[in-house]
Amino acid sequence: MTTLQLISEIKKKKSFLCIGLDVDKNKIPQHLLNEEDPIFSFNKAIIDATHHLCIAYKPNTAFYEAYGINGWKSLEKTINYLNETHPEIFTIADAKRGDIGNTSSMYAKAFFEDLAFDSVTVAPYMGKDSVEPFLAFENKHTIMLALTSNEGAFDFQTKKVDGKELYKQVLETSKTWKNSENLMYVVGATKAEYFADIRKFVPDSFLLVPGVGAQGGNLQDVCKYGMNKNVGLLINSSRGIIYASNQEDFAQAAAREAKELQQEMEFILDK
Amino acid sequence: MTTLQLISEIKKKKSFLCIGLDVDKNKIPQHLLNEEDPIFSFNKAIIDATHHLCIAYKPNTAFYEAYGINGWKSLEKTINYLNETHPEIFTIADAKRGDIGNTSSMYAKAFFEDLAFDSVTVAPYMGKDSVEPFLAFENKHTIMLALTSNEGAFDFQTKKVDGKELYKQVLETSKTWKNSENLMYVVGATKAEYFADIRKFVPDSFLLVPGVGAQGGNLQDVCKYGMNKNVGLLINSSRGIIYASNQEDFAQAAAREAKELQQEMEFILDK
Repeated sequence: MTTLQLISEIKKKKSFLCIGLDVDKNKIPQHLLNEEDPIFSFNKAIIDATHHLCIAYKPNTAFYEAYGINGWKSLEKTINYLNETHPEIFTIADAKRGDIGNTSSMYAKAFFEDLAFDSVTVAPYMGKDSVEPFLAFENKHTIMLALTSNEGAFDFQTKKVDGKELYKQVLETSKTWKNSENLMYVVGATKAEYFADIRKFVPDSFLLVPGVGAQGGNLQDVCKYGMNKNVGLLINSSRGIIYASNQEDFAQAAAREAKELQQEMEFILDK
Repeated sequence: MTTLQLISEIKKKKSFLCIGLDVDKNKIPQHLLNEEDPIFSFNKAIIDATHHLCIAYKPNTAFYEAYGINGWKSLEKTINYLNETHPEIFTIADAKRGDIGNTSSMYAKAFFEDLAFDSVTVAPYMGKDSVEPFLAFENKHTIMLALTSNEGAFDFQTKKVDGKELYKQVLETSKTWKNSENLMYVVGATKAEYFADIRKFVPDSFLLVPGVGAQGGNLQDVCKYGMNKNVGLLINSSRGIIYASNQEDFAQAAAREAKELQQEMEFILDK
């Protein structure tokens, strides 16, 4: 998917909501455990109930790998279902990968070709040659960790490197990499006050923003400081939406939560 | 596996060689492609021919994920084969994972419980709460990236953070984390001159050292500066061993290369 197509979807749906499909078998409605593939059944029901309210889905690979081969099968079924029934929806493999060049190429192949995701998240620690293999794919997007939503972000990311915080060095340096126009960045909603500064480095890039909802981030604040002329934000909510209910009505409950966020977004977009 | 067991194996085999099982279908002998599971057949032959020469195997997950569910099956068969036939061998899932706490717990479950690896590699960028879930597993080891073997290591890892290189901050900070005795670190062989400095921060920790062979690192130099009283090094070679031949004799050729490294190690240990 091109960035222009993504922007067009945002405008059409008046939403920049991304729903995180972080499916834990201990948290889904127990009646689903009788299904052949409980995780896929859960995802399919969530997607069917919410696809008109969001512009992206983001399965976190950890939740699938934890169930071994069956988990990987659920992930494959989920991305295939999305690509078949809703090809206009942006898909994110939240995998946080990164390795030396020839190995990163294998990860890129795994997520862009084998699973056919539109994008994948990567970690910056290993630098340029660990990320460029992902950037080489046309109309695919590489979403690099910049400033994450967790407490551990303060361990290294906000430390000063040559007088400038590490996450700013990451933003700045990455812009010099080949095909850097295919980069987006992860910036946590729990750090809304940082967005204005971040926009000085990457005014035009899309930012994937986790941390709204369960982790405590505030949508209004993020938009106030982080939005650009093309919106430029993908706001993710996972647990707040998909676990709104653990009863038979879980999909409708998820849709209610998603609708609430979508309407808040529509209000912001119309301002 | 405990660290004491690992040390005991090193002394018994007079080897601290780790063999990287980074299996690319384009590089393995073509006759294997007729097998039901070419990747597992390749790994099994390599393991059968080299297990007496090395103390660890390290499959890099990227090479398995690139083949989707079949790749994940090959990985599962490989670790099961290792655990059944050579339980004394240390196993490393080279996955370079790391995410917010609840998500890292899922990765830890995937690699330590579901696949039953002895260890997994992780990335430090997201800090303490992204790594501690791995450290919570008893007799399991978490191998954190410190200074990697690639060119991109100079992008951020060697940059000065409050007057001290980032990789040193990573080493130092990680020692304050809960169960930090379960940490090992990745330090690339291509940067042998850094080892003496690194040992000031982590004198007792094991270091996993990629980059000997194909990437140009020198074993003698690494040992000179990096070895401690318990050896403290796991020297990895992947391509140099497993792709020594792409003909029918590939396993014997791998054994020859492994034997050469093991003998070099025995010579160093006996000095």
